Amino acid sequence: MTGHLDLLLADPDLVALLDSAADLATMVEVELALATASAEAGLIPQEAAAAIVAAAPGFRPDLTALAADTLRDGVVVAGLVGQFRDHVGPAHGAALHAGATSQDIIDTALAIRLGRVLALFETRLARLSDGLAVLSTRFGHHRLIGRTRMQAAIPITVADRLAVWQGLLARASDGLGAVRRANLVLSLAGPAGTSERFGDHIGAVRRAMASRLGLSVPDYVPHAARDRIARLGGWLSEVTGALGKIGQDVALMAQNEIAEIALSGAGGSSAMAHKQNPVRAEVLVTLARFNAVQLSGLHQALVHEQERSGAAWTLEWMILPPMLNATGTALRHADAMLASVERIGIAD
Amino acid sequence: MTGHLDLLLADPDLVALLDSAADLATMVEVELALATASAEAGLIPQEAAAAIVAAAPGFRPDLTALAADTLRDGVVVAGLVGQFRDHVGPAHGAALHAGATSQDIIDTALAIRLGRVLALFETRLARLSDGLAVLSTRFGHHRLIGRTRMQAAIPITVADRLAVWQGLLARASDGLGAVRRANLVLSLAGPAGTSERFGDHIGAVRRAMASRLGLSVPDYVPHAARDRIARLGGWLSEVTGALGKIGQDVALMAQNEIAEIALSGAGGSSAMAHKQNPVRAEVLVTLARFNAVQLSGLHQALVHEQERSGAAWTLEWMILPPMLNATGTALRHADAMLASVERIGIAD
Amino acid sequence: MTGHLDLLLADPDLVALLDSAADLATMVEVELALATASAEAGLIPQEAAAAIVAAAPGFRPDLTALAADTLRDGVVVAGLVGQFRDHVGPAHGAALHAGATSQDIIDTALAIRLGRVLALFETRLARLSDGLAVLSTRFGHHRLIGRTRMQAAIPITVADRLAVWQGLLARASDGLGAVRRANLVLSLAGPAGTSERFGDHIGAVRRAMASRLGLSVPDYVPHAARDRIARLGGWLSEVTGALGKIGQDVALMAQNEIAEIALSGAGGSSAMAHKQNPVRAEVLVTLARFNAVQLSGLHQALVHEQERSGAAWTLEWMILPPMLNATGTALRHADAMLASVERIGIAD
Amino acid sequence: MTGHLDLLLADPDLVALLDSAADLATMVEVELALATASAEAGLIPQEAAAAIVAAAPGFRPDLTALAADTLRDGVVVAGLVGQFRDHVGPAHGAALHAGATSQDIIDTALAIRLGRVLALFETRLARLSDGLAVLSTRFGHHRLIGRTRMQAAIPITVADRLAVWQGLLARASDGLGAVRRANLVLSLAGPAGTSERFGDHIGAVRRAMASRLGLSVPDYVPHAARDRIARLGGWLSEVTGALGKIGQDVALMAQNEIAEIALSGAGGSSAMAHKQNPVRAEVLVTLARFNAVQLSGLHQALVHEQERSGAAWTLEWMILPPMLNATGTALRHADAMLASVERIGIAD
Repeated sequence: MTGHLDLLLADPDLVALLDSAADLATMVEVELALATASAEAGLIPQEAAAAIVAAAPGFRPDLTALAADTLRDGVVVAGLVGQFRDHVGPAHGAALHAGATSQDIIDTALAIRLGRVLALFETRLARLSDGLAVLSTRFGHHRLIGRTRMQAAIPITVADRLAVWQGLLARASDGLGAVRRANLVLSLAGPAGTSERFGDHIGAVRRAMASRLGLSVPDYVPHAARDRIARLGGWLSEVTGALGKIGQDVALMAQNEIAEIALSGAGGSSAMAHKQNPVRAEVLVTLARFNAVQLSGLHQALVHEQERSGAAWTLEWMILPPMLNATGTALRHADAMLASVERIGIAD
Repeated sequence: MTGHLDLLLADPDLVALLDSAADLATMVEVELALATASAEAGLIPQEAAAAIVAAAPGFRPDLTALAADTLRDGVVVAGLVGQFRDHVGPAHGAALHAGATSQDIIDTALAIRLGRVLALFETRLARLSDGLAVLSTRFGHHRLIGRTRMQAAIPITVADRLAVWQGLLARASDGLGAVRRANLVLSLAGPAGTSERFGDHIGAVRRAMASRLGLSVPDYVPHAARDRIARLGGWLSEVTGALGKIGQDVALMAQNEIAEIALSGAGGSSAMAHKQNPVRAEVLVTLARFNAVQLSGLHQALVHEQERSGAAWTLEWMILPPMLNATGTALRHADAMLASVERIGIAD
Repeated sequence: MTGHLDLLLADPDLVALLDSAADLATMVEVELALATASAEAGLIPQEAAAAIVAAAPGFRPDLTALAADTLRDGVVVAGLVGQFRDHVGPAHGAALHAGATSQDIIDTALAIRLGRVLALFETRLARLSDGLAVLSTRFGHHRLIGRTRMQAAIPITVADRLAVWQGLLARASDGLGAVRRANLVLSLAGPAGTSERFGDHIGAVRRAMASRLGLSVPDYVPHAARDRIARLGGWLSEVTGALGKIGQDVALMAQNEIAEIALSGAGGSSAMAHKQNPVRAEVLVTLARFNAVQLSGLHQALVHEQERSGAAWTLEWMILPPMLNATGTALRHADAMLASVERIGIAD
Repeated sequence: MTGHLDLLLADPDLVALLDSAADLATMVEVELALATASAEAGLIPQEAAAAIVAAAPGFRPDLTALAADTLRDGVVVAGLVGQFRDHVGPAHGAALHAGATSQDIIDTALAIRLGRVLALFETRLARLSDGLAVLSTRFGHHRLIGRTRMQAAIPITVADRLAVWQGLLARASDGLGAVRRANLVLSLAGPAGTSERFGDHIGAVRRAMASRLGLSVPDYVPHAARDRIARLGGWLSEVTGALGKIGQDVALMAQNEIAEIALSGAGGSSAMAHKQNPVRAEVLVTLARFNAVQLSGLHQALVHEQERSGAAWTLEWMILPPMLNATGTALRHADAMLASVERIGIAD
C-alpha cells in the first residue's frame, strides 16, 4: 500500500501489470523474442541469441540510471539495451536489439501487457454480467417509476432498467474482440518504419516474434499510425461510461426520499454517523467522467507527425495507463456495488 | 452562402443534410412510418394513417412557434406533432404519434440522416483512397528523409510515408461498417422505454417502420443507451485524426527549407504576396484537434441518467452536428489538397 | 428564426453580435481606424483616409467571393481588403490595410465584438444577482435538507444554498474585469509582429486606433500569444459551470418525491401530459458540460507555433463563438428559470 | 526512484509535496490547528487541545487500514480521525475534529500544500525569466526568419521571438497572485456548510486557524463552490501552454534543414547514433496538451451538486495532482532546455 487512495481510485491488480518494473520486464521479453527470431532467420548468431536468453533471468536494470537515460533520450530503450548489453557481455551484446528501434520495443511491450489487462477486464465484465443477471432474477419483477428528464414518468419494472444496464455491458463486451485484435499486435519496423536491417527476413522475424509473444503481425507499420490506441481508449471510456450511467442511476435511486435501492455497507461520514453514502456509485460517475476527459488526449495524439512523434507518443504514455487504471477500478467498484444490493424497486 | 467561413470550416453538402429543415422533415418521415406501421398492426385506423400520409406533403411547420415550443419543452416533438395534428385535422390527428415518445422520433430521424451522411463520407473516403493511390504511383519511388522526433533519421521513399496515410484511411473505412450497423437503428419504445402502448404488436411495428426507413431494429431499448453515439464520435475523430496527421505531415514537408512537397494554389497573405500557405493542410490539423476535443463531450453524455436524460441528450445535439461537419469538411479539404500536389519527395 | 433549436440552444442577441456580417463589418471598422490613424501619423495621405472612410458606408462585400477567398487563403482579410480597395478606387485603395496583417484585423475585430458581448453578459449577471437576492428575501428563511454525496445530511435554510449560488456568480462577475482588460486589446503588429512598416509611428498609430475603437494597447505583440483567449474561455466556462451547478441543484430539488422547488411553466412531454420537466435547469447542466469540453480546445490552441499558427488560430475560431453562445444562452435560461420559481424549500 | 519515467514525466520535488504521506501529514496539521483554535474559543478543553498537539508527533497512521476506510467512506478523514483519536486516547480524543467535516480537512490540507507548490512554481518561473533574459542578451540581435502558417514570412530578430516567450511567462507570473489568493483559503464550515457546531465562535476559530496555517478566510463557504480549483487549473494549463508554445518553436527551429537553434545534450536514439533529438522541447508540447486535456475535467467538476458532490470532488482528486505534476515537470524541462541552448538564430 503506497497511498490512502489506492483502493478507492486505483486497481492493485493493474498496478502489477502496468508499473515500471512490469514495463521493463516486458521490454526484455520483446528483446529476447527479437534475438531468438533473428537468430532463426540467420540475422544474428545462434550463440548470441542463446547468450542473450540465458542472461535475461539475471538481468537487474539499474533504475536510477534508466531514469536519467530516459530523461536524456525521451525513451528508456537505449539505456535499457545498453545495460542489458553490458550484462550479456561484449561477445554477444551487440546482437541485442539488432535492427529494431525504441518504438518497436515499447509498443510491443505495451501490446503484451494490454493482452493481460484486457483478459482481466473480460473476466470482470463477465462477472458483472452474472451479477446483473442475478439481480434481475431477484428483483426484476419489482416496480420502479420510470424517470425521464429527472421527473417521474410511468411505472416500469426493475428488469426494464436493468436491461439497459445489461445491454450496455453486453455491447462493451462484444466490442472487446475488435479492440484486442487491433491492439495485440507486434511492432517491428526499425528506425523509420522500413525494416531495412532485416531485408527479406522481416516477414519471418515478425511472424516468429509475434507467435512467441502471443501477438499478431499487423499488415501496416504501426509506429505513426495510432488509430488502434484511440480505439482502445474509446472502448475503455465506453466501459466506464456504461458503469458511470449505472452509478448515476444508483446514486439517484439511493436518495433518501426515493429509496428505490438499498445497499449494504455504504460509506460513513466523519461528521454524521447516520449517513449511508453510496460511495462506489459516485465514484463510478467520477471514473466515467475521468475517462471521457482523457479520451480527448488520445485523439489529440492521432496527429502524430512524420515517422515518429515524440510529443504525441509521450502523450499516450501519460494518458493511457490512467485510463486503464480507471477502467479496472470502475469494474471492481461496480462488482462490489452490485454485490451490496439488498433490494431494488418495490415489491408488489 | 451565409458566412465567409462557410467553405473553409463548413461542408455545404452536410448543411443540407443536417439543418433544422432537414431535421424536421425527417421527423415527419418517422411519424408517417409510425402511422403506417401502426395501421398495419391495427393499432390505429387505416384511414387515419392514410390521412396522415396524405397530409404530409402540404405540411409546413411554423418555425417560430416550434422554436418557442422547443424552448418550453426541451424537445421539438410535442410542438411539431401538435402542428401536424392541426394540419391533419381532428378526425385523424389523434392517431399521429400514438404510443411514441419524443426521443423515438428525434433519435430515429437522426439515424436516417446519419445514413445519408455516412454514405457521403464513404464516397469521399473512397475518393481519397484513389487519390493516394495515384500519388503513390506518381511519386512513390521518390526519396524522402524519414523523420522521427522532428529530426532527420534515415532515407525512406515517398511510398513508405504514403503507406501510413493509406493505412489510416483504409482502417477508418473498414470501421465504417460497424459504426453504420450500430447507428442506423430504429428507436421506438414509448415514454419510458417499455412500449406499453403497442402491446404484442411492438415487434411488428418496429420491423415495418425500420424496413420502410432503411434502418434495423436494435435488440435493446436505445433511449438511455448512448454507446452507439460515442462510437460514432470515435470514428469521426479517427477519420479527422488520420487526416490531421496527413495535414501535419504536409505542412511540415511544405516548409521552405525542406520543400518535400509542392502544392499548387496554396493560400495567399494579405501582407506578403510571395507566400504560399498550405491552408488546407493546416485546417486538417485544426479539424482533427477540434473533433478530438468534442469527442470528450459525447463520452460525458454516456452518463445518461435513468430512462432519459435531458441534460446528456441535449449535449449530444450540441456536439454531434459540429463533429459531422468537421469530418465532412476535413474530407473535402483532404481531397482538394491531394489533388493540388505537384510533387512529393525528390526524384532520383 | 432559422432553426427550431434557436431559442433552446442559441442566444439571438449573440447571433447579431457574432455572425459573419457583424464580423466583416467590424473588420471594416478596424480598417477605417487604421487608415485614419495612419493618416494622422503621416503614413498615408489624408485624402486617402478620407476617401476610405467616405467609401465605407456604401461597401457591400460579395459574400460568395469572400467565402472562396477565405477557403483559398485561410483568412478573409486579403479578399475583403481587395474588394474594399476596388470599392474605394485606384486612387486611394492602396492606402487601405497599409502595414497591417490579417491577424491584426481579425483579432482586433474580435476584441471589439467581445467588448459588446461582455457588456451584455455583465448586464445579465447583474440581473441574475438581483434575481437571486429576490429569491433569498422571499424564501431564504425556508427550510431545506442539506445534502452531501446525494444523501440527506442536516437541515439548512434556503438562504444557505442560495448563498453558494450567489457567491459563484459574484466571483464570476468580479473576474470579468480582468478578462475584459486582457481581451479588449488592439492587435497591430504587421506580418511577423515587428510592425516594420510603421517605423517610429507605431506607438502613435496604435494609441489612436485603440482610442477610436474603445480598446487598449497591449504591452506585447498579441499574434502568437493566446493566453488572453484561454483566460476568456476559462471565465466563460466558469460562468456556465456556476449556472450548471445551479441547474443541477434545481433539477435535483424538482424531483417529484423531493419537491424542494416549484417552477411555473416547466416543459411538457409529447407523451405524458402530466409531466413538468425542469427543461432550463437541465439545459444549464448541458451548457456547463459543453463549455467544459470546449475549454480544452482553447488551451490546445496555446501551442501556437512561430509568429502565427494557422492551425491553432483557426481552432479558436471554431471553439470560441460556440462558447460565447453557450454562455449567453445559459445566462438567459438561468434568468428565466429564477423568474419561474414559485417556491423553494419548506416554510416553517 | 520508482520508475524509469520519473524524471521525464514527473517532478521529484512535487512528489514529496503531493504524495499520500504529505497529504495525511497536512491533514493532521489542519486537525491540530482546529483543536488549538477551538480551545482558544472555549469550544473544547485546553487540555484536550494540548493532548492532541502533544500526541501528533508520535502519530503514525496505519496506511493499510486507511486505504480500506477510504474505499468504504470515499474519504480518508473518518478513518484518519479514528486512528488519531485512538492514539490521543479516550480522555481527549473526542475533542478532535469537533464541528468539522471531511471536506474541511481535505480541502484545507490541499490549500496548504498548494501554497508550497505555488511557491516552488514561482521560483521556477523567475528562473525561466532570468534564463530568457540571458538568451535575449546573448542572441537577441541574431537574425531569424519570421514564420507564419509554417512558411517563411519576413526577417525578424531572435529578440522578437523571445519577447513573445517572455511575455507569455510574464503574464503567467502576473496571474499567480490571483490564483494564490483564491486558493490559499481555509475551509471550515461543518457537515453541510452551516458551521452550526461553532455557533458565534466560527469567525474567531476560522481566523485563528487560517493565521496558524498561513491561509486566508474566504468570505464564502467553499465546499460546493469550486471555481477556485477551475481557475487554478486554468493557470496551470496557461503555464504549460506557454512552455508548450516555446517547446514547439524550439522543435521546429531544431529541424536539420532549418537549424535555427543549437542545443547541447539532446537525446540519443537506440538505433541512430547520429541523431540529436530535442526531447525536452517535445515533452513541453506533450505536457501542454496533457494539461489542456485535463482542464476540461476540472471544469466538469464545477457541476458540483448540492452541499457536497462525491462524484465531482473525487474527479478533482484524480485530475489536479497530475496537472500540478505536469506543470512542475514542464518548468523543470524548460529551465534545462534554455540552459542547453548554444545558439539561436544566425549571427550577422
